[in-house]
Amino acid sequence: MAQAHWGCCPWLVFLCACAWSHPKPIHLGREDVRNCTTNPPYLPITAVNTTARLTALRQQIQAWNLSAYIIPDTDAHMSEYIGLHDERRAWISGFTGTAGTAVVTMIKAAVWTDSRYWTQAERQMDCNWELHKEVGITPLATWILNEIPAGGRVGIDPFLFSVDSWKAYDLKFQGSNRQLVSIVTNLVDLAWGSQRPPVPSQPIYALPEAFTGSTWQEKVSSIRSHMKNHTMAPTALLLSALDETACEEGAFVDMGGSWVPQSSFPKQPHIHQLLGTLATVFPSHLFPGLFNLRSNDIPYNPFFYSYTMLTDSSIRLFVNKSRFSPETLQYLNSNCTGPMCVQLEDYSQVRDSVQAYALGDVRIWIGTTYTTYGLYEVIPQDKLVTSTYSPVMEAKAVKNSKEQALLKASHVRDAVAVIRYLVWLEKNVPKGTVDEFSGAELLDELRRKEDFSSGPSFETISASGLNAALAHYSPTKELHRKLSSDEMYLVDSGGQYWDGTTDITRTVHWGTPTAFQKEAYTRVLMGNIDLSRLVFPAAMQGRMVEAFARKALWDVGLNYGHGTGHGIGNFLCVHEWPVGFQSNNIAMAKGMFTSIEPGYYHDGEFGIRLEDVALVVEAKTKYPGTYLTFEVVSFVPYDRNLIDVSLLSPEQLQYLNHYYQNIREQVGPVLQRRQLLEEFAWLQQHTEPLAAGAPRRRSWASVWAACTLALLSWTS
Amino acid sequence: MAQAHWGCCPWLVFLCACAWSHPKPIHLGREDVRNCTTNPPYLPITAVNTTARLTALRQQIQAWNLSAYIIPDTDAHMSEYIGLHDERRAWISGFTGTAGTAVVTMIKAAVWTDSRYWTQAERQMDCNWELHKEVGITPLATWILNEIPAGGRVGIDPFLFSVDSWKAYDLKFQGSNRQLVSIVTNLVDLAWGSQRPPVPSQPIYALPEAFTGSTWQEKVSSIRSHMKNHTMAPTALLLSALDETACEEGAFVDMGGSWVPQSSFPKQPHIHQLLGTLATVFPSHLFPGLFNLRSNDIPYNPFFYSYTMLTDSSIRLFVNKSRFSPETLQYLNSNCTGPMCVQLEDYSQVRDSVQAYALGDVRIWIGTTYTTYGLYEVIPQDKLVTSTYSPVMEAKAVKNSKEQALLKASHVRDAVAVIRYLVWLEKNVPKGTVDEFSGAELLDELRRKEDFSSGPSFETISASGLNAALAHYSPTKELHRKLSSDEMYLVDSGGQYWDGTTDITRTVHWGTPTAFQKEAYTRVLMGNIDLSRLVFPAAMQGRMVEAFARKALWDVGLNYGHGTGHGIGNFLCVHEWPVGFQSNNIAMAKGMFTSIEPGYYHDGEFGIRLEDVALVVEAKTKYPGTYLTFEVVSFVPYDRNLIDVSLLSPEQLQYLNHYYQNIREQVGPVLQRRQLLEEFAWLQQHTEPLAAGAPRRRSWASVWAACTLALLSWTS
Repeated sequence: MAQAHWGCCPWLVFLCACAWSHPKPIHLGREDVRNCTTNPPYLPITAVNTTARLTALRQQIQAWNLSAYIIPDTDAHMSEYIGLHDERRAWISGFTGTAGTAVVTMIKAAVWTDSRYWTQAERQMDCNWELHKEVGITPLATWILNEIPAGGRVGIDPFLFSVDSWKAYDLKFQGSNRQLVSIVTNLVDLAWGSQRPPVPSQPIYALPEAFTGSTWQEKVSSIRSHMKNHTMAPTALLLSALDETACEEGAFVDMGGSWVPQSSFPKQPHIHQLLGTLATVFPSHLFPGLFNLRSNDIPYNPFFYSYTMLTDSSIRLFVNKSRFSPETLQYLNSNCTGPMCVQLEDYSQVRDSVQAYALGDVRIWIGTTYTTYGLYEVIPQDKLVTSTYSPVMEAKAVKNSKEQALLKASHVRDAVAVIRYLVWLEKNVPKGTVDEFSGAELLDELRRKEDFSSGPSFETISASGLNAALAHYSPTKELHRKLSSDEMYLVDSGGQYWDGTTDITRTVHWGTPTAFQKEAYTRVLMGNIDLSRLVFPAAMQGRMVEAFARKALWDVGLNYGHGTGHGIGNFLCVHEWPVGFQSNNIAMAKGMFTSIEPGYYHDGEFGIRLEDVALVVEAKTKYPGTYLTFEVVSFVPYDRNLIDVSLLSPEQLQYLNHYYQNIREQVGPVLQRRQLLEEFAWLQQHTEPLAAGAPRRRSWASVWAACTLALLSWTS
Repeated sequence: MAQAHWGCCPWLVFLCACAWSHPKPIHLGREDVRNCTTNPPYLPITAVNTTARLTALRQQIQAWNLSAYIIPDTDAHMSEYIGLHDERRAWISGFTGTAGTAVVTMIKAAVWTDSRYWTQAERQMDCNWELHKEVGITPLATWILNEIPAGGRVGIDPFLFSVDSWKAYDLKFQGSNRQLVSIVTNLVDLAWGSQRPPVPSQPIYALPEAFTGSTWQEKVSSIRSHMKNHTMAPTALLLSALDETACEEGAFVDMGGSWVPQSSFPKQPHIHQLLGTLATVFPSHLFPGLFNLRSNDIPYNPFFYSYTMLTDSSIRLFVNKSRFSPETLQYLNSNCTGPMCVQLEDYSQVRDSVQAYALGDVRIWIGTTYTTYGLYEVIPQDKLVTSTYSPVMEAKAVKNSKEQALLKASHVRDAVAVIRYLVWLEKNVPKGTVDEFSGAELLDELRRKEDFSSGPSFETISASGLNAALAHYSPTKELHRKLSSDEMYLVDSGGQYWDGTTDITRTVHWGTPTAFQKEAYTRVLMGNIDLSRLVFPAAMQGRMVEAFARKALWDVGLNYGHGTGHGIGNFLCVHEWPVGFQSNNIAMAKGMFTSIEPGYYHDGEFGIRLEDVALVVEAKTKYPGTYLTFEVVSFVPYDRNLIDVSLLSPEQLQYLNHYYQNIREQVGPVLQRRQLLEEFAWLQQHTEPLAAGAPRRRSWASVWAACTLALLSWTS
């Protein structure tokens, strides 16, 4: 599953608000929340004094002749994680939650966030700030309309708003005699001044050819042919972002949504230097897949900040040039001729360059989902060619056969790491020596031992008992729970490998689960199976079929409050847009990879999730037609201890046993080759074919009845 | 299923374009299609000379200083059927197909339509017209951009464009130095002049209270409380349309879509008089449910053209006043006090009245899906309160218990009519005396014999053999096929009754179906059952679950190219928006009615559809939760001759037998009471419980194996 923003998933936030509306403070008591109604107000030690910060920001607001300034919770590329230097809302308000938007007027300041963060906000904010327990643009815009006078100007940094979110805000102010004003100078950064953390600048490196599906030159040529065939004949393609992250900007989320880990600040500060002047606060990143380049600007994601503008005759890469080694420069431009040479330009120049280019007789193609308003607004409307996603995004969604093989290979090695972990747990949990955090650390360590490892693909979710029912839980060194044979344990983790990115969730119980736990687990498994074995027409939207993963739960009144799956990259993003089962995902096609991850969460008790990654393949149908199905490439068996076989239909059982056979064939030889014999034995035991029915519960009478019926029906 | 526009369902059009791309002319040969490449051009006798009409229109285009004029295929309320006086595109182009848009410039004229109509257009249009074999706004706008000079003005009648379609066109011209111009005077009407058919003006009557769920006063009060509770505090609600018709304006159609019958002009000309001057070409209609009023302005739908503007202190009904009898006027205004008195105003005045009202300190609430641009444009942006649907539409979607009982009662009587028809067919088809058209006439006649009948709810689709594979087929007196025991027969029909509207499809075979026909039929039935018995969370979107109706077909590589269901009214529209399984439908809620209608169509061979109407009810689940399911209220058994019981799962079989038991209980006593004893016997025979398995095909060996397995599993 990994983690994602869910600020844009109102239904999910609502669900979670219901499930977790009674946060259970662990160390802090009631007195640790601010009380602004007393005189003087009570402020806990965790509250941040923002008076000076607000004064500095209001000086800027006044200087720019504004009435209000909106500070969102994102960076210029809508990342799942953002760097410290992008934590503007956290700095100005003191509130460090990953979701929430701030607005500052000359007399008031307010934060809007969802129920996960209400207590945190009351602890961190001083009484300069109002807390609004709502999300979405409407309540925020309504508040602004009430607070500022007619004729008022509302400032935003256009590089922190997608085209769609800018339009949504703009619409709210239309006809209200209030105006949304785009200011490329970020006013919070001006107030922040020299205290603002710098930007990281690790080297950018080229991925060895063995780990890439195509050379960058092939990719460029392919995109150019897309441009040539486009009816609107774009002369340039502007790539702003690596990827749209899951559940992000402008998404029409219905049954989708994703989880976000219980993190406030990213664990690893990724501080990178702003290039150019203060007027160029728009670090963004190029789609690294295009050039097969990688770096580490974003935690868990091998990206680097940049833009690309591709024309028929040129390739302009806007990036911090000093990050390229001579070898990488050579990789980009060895023996090239004009149109296939990459021109490096300073990334602070992208807006000016796009604007200058747009003066000509040109048409610039952008994907509106991930292009910020900061670039959109400098392109005249009649020179814009728009699509929801760029052709790079769409091309990337379908993996070629080499990329498929690479991704599968990484999943086999990943399964080895996970199986080693499960075997180790089975032995050590009963000793009482394992906790969620030490377990997660071991699993990360086991992954790092695998070939081509580049660390975890997201912060491991290692949750025991009731913690697994919390959507955004990850343990810390300080706060964690001991693993025990008395309760269920959920581990959702993944790895970055040079040949692929992985993401898998397994839930286990080493003791005696309750009947309800077994039923819930089995129904989650049935949902996973029903979707995995579904045959569906080519070009089907994932959201049209995701309910198959829920039906077995719905049947008895159970459900889960998150999405059913997301795309995944080849050593790229663990949430690779635009593949998945949400309404803003593109149609399924042969060669795509998606996770399939139903779950069930019982508040205060336990949580279950069974997540696999699956390749979309052609299905063979009785009658001819272009149909698709899934081939699961996660190779770790489920927990037999939690499966109630009597609930499974013959088709589900057959599928499961076939999958287990496949796990044996894929992973068994690797374990043997690597002399992991204990793990091999464990695998054999856990992939034994499961037998139909719930035989021991059958009475003689029912056997007799079945025989009689069979005989009668034959003779009738 | 009934019929609907599908001009807005591009995927469906595409599907059909594939399936029916080789139209098989019945009487006309190749020479009956125009040939504009010869000199002189060849024109078949069916072609209409449009030279004078175009000259007249171009005079208007010039007089209004336009470069082009767009003529859509709709009326001011986006009706499924439109009156002759609204057939502007047909009159100007000669092409009478129900879907297609025309554009006229000073030198060119062109029609865009989908593959169903290409041959028809080539027969009906003269060489003044280009035929563009495309649909959607993009190709049309691109053509205009190429054809007209910079600075050109493109005229439209704003009352023939929804807000969304106007915006979509406007977006295409933005930045192109071409301008979309709204002209409330319809230029085609000016050219048409005195030849234009007049408008009908039948009496408007009040529905007896026994057939209404609430009084109109209760409905008005309820809507006023909606207005009061709205965060934007609207001062008025403007109701423009009766209903959004299926697959209509602004729809985000994905797996949805609907069918349209093979009709060009409505069979019953409904000609109504234009009120006021030529400048008021905007006949539209009020939501009749609000006042429990009905008339016959639209074929098969008991509506009348009008608008309502509701404020806290007034009710203004814009309508042709002369259509009210003293009794109806009394019904509206007996003993009323100020805010509950209905003020009748001339419906030609609605635009001026809205504009005048908008001068005040007001906020006007509209549902953007069915409000035309003609009204939208006179309301300043800051005085608009918009939602996709008005509260009237949303309230109407959920039937109260009285309305539910009324609708169910009408379905019981409707089942009697359909069963009488099926019994009659069973006896008469083998004689070779029945054809599609005479059959449809008889069925309509049988419905009219039922209590409270007000005729069919749409043109009966009566299709035998290969005709049933044609999406838009209805027989005519001249063109029809004989029914035969050698082929399948599909009948899709419904009735209007004072207590409800019905819609049911059954497919039958009186001889020996092929194995493939049986399998396809059974899989369609399995889909119907799987969706009908589905348990799903409250507030689920229909589109998220409609694939359950397809899975049994998908499993073997079959599918159908239309939507899975639509809402239905209480003596209102047979396609009642916004309920259904498409992406622009609202979430399912207890008390809604929807059709469930999977199908399968084998080009050139046969067609299958099994359509029932179902009520959304609460489901009882093992674990507590708010879950819904369906209760089918169509009470006609399926064809046993076509069911391969061996394909059904035990759950499907159990459901089917339970449904049959329910049919017996609901319809049996009515048949007996009415002395329809032959029909009663037929019903008993056709609702006998079906037995599991396909016993006759079982071998001794398989019976033995089943017994052995059962025994083994018991002993293990």
